[in-house]
Amino acid sequence: MLSPKFSELVRALRCLPSVGAKTAQRMALQLIERDRQGAELIVSTLTAALSDIGRCERCQALSETPVCPICADEQRDHAQLCIVESLTDWLAIEQSGAFQGYYFLLSGRLSPLDGIGPREIGVDRLMVRLDDPAIEEVILATSATIEGEATASYLQSMMAGSRYRVSRLAQGVPMGGELEYLDGHTLALALRSRRPITDD
Amino acid sequence: MLSPKFSELVRALRCLPSVGAKTAQRMALQLIERDRQGAELIVSTLTAALSDIGRCERCQALSETPVCPICADEQRDHAQLCIVESLTDWLAIEQSGAFQGYYFLLSGRLSPLDGIGPREIGVDRLMVRLDDPAIEEVILATSATIEGEATASYLQSMMAGSRYRVSRLAQGVPMGGELEYLDGHTLALALRSRRPITDD
Repeated sequence: MLSPKFSELVRALRCLPSVGAKTAQRMALQLIERDRQGAELIVSTLTAALSDIGRCERCQALSETPVCPICADEQRDHAQLCIVESLTDWLAIEQSGAFQGYYFLLSGRLSPLDGIGPREIGVDRLMVRLDDPAIEEVILATSATIEGEATASYLQSMMAGSRYRVSRLAQGVPMGGELEYLDGHTLALALRSRRPITDD
Repeated sequence: MLSPKFSELVRALRCLPSVGAKTAQRMALQLIERDRQGAELIVSTLTAALSDIGRCERCQALSETPVCPICADEQRDHAQLCIVESLTDWLAIEQSGAFQGYYFLLSGRLSPLDGIGPREIGVDRLMVRLDDPAIEEVILATSATIEGEATASYLQSMMAGSRYRVSRLAQGVPMGGELEYLDGHTLALALRSRRPITDD
């Protein structure tokens, strides 16, 4: 009914996250009917991104250069390496501004049932990165889910007896969290990991 | 922090309807990190759509050919012309399957305060289309909003005294509409336009 090339575009747009048939059609109409300039910008930026963005050979984050700007930044703290499981987690930590060391990005988390083992998430590349003699502390910043915890404990056992300290993100009550609405696990954990109040 | 080409892609994706900064970032990550094949498909289909999709010279709908498949279909009812204000309205009527005539697509509705007059919505092209001697009825299918009504009544006065009948979509209680939740205007209208019950 509508032109076949329009339908093909609608079908292609459905690969975007949480875009269904109706939304894809609205997007395609917007691009072809009302905002051809925007559509051309998407084509050119997406083409450039696809051809020029690869992975940083040190941390595996997206980068246009063989080594990403963060890994290339000599001002950061060489003693700390933070291991994250996704680029969004990497971004979240970097945007918090609380970490000055370097990162290593796993390609996801261990999930043996889905056939995702250490090799699939890039543990071999991590081993190479860990050879860096400057590293004094490795921070396991995988998420607090079952798979994230499994990944962290696998890495922890793998690094047992190594010369650097291994740490894990603290768990507890989030900022602004009302105890009343917090799940029991988190509350129990926060209680067990309670800190003595000091005067500093 | 992330590569500049990635940020440019995120900015470009924000031209899509109801896509903000967070969603655009998620889309860009999906395209570059996880689904490069999908990204390449978007580039190729969007490029093809931009270069090959124009407007039908008879009805102004999107078309890859000078005359769209509907206008080129000689089997449809030449006596009826349905005037719609957007491609989505056009699609909605066509998908209902209740109309077998031809369409004419206005580029929006009259909105004098925004400087959108008859020429901007393509009334001159409509005049050319209305020269077709086969037309017996013109159906004004603009939306039931203030601007839609204004557009319909402008067109109606423009066509006053012409050889064809001019009609308007019926207004009233929608299918499945509970009277209790219907607005007063619609209810009053439905009451005023009440139909005698016949036995056919």
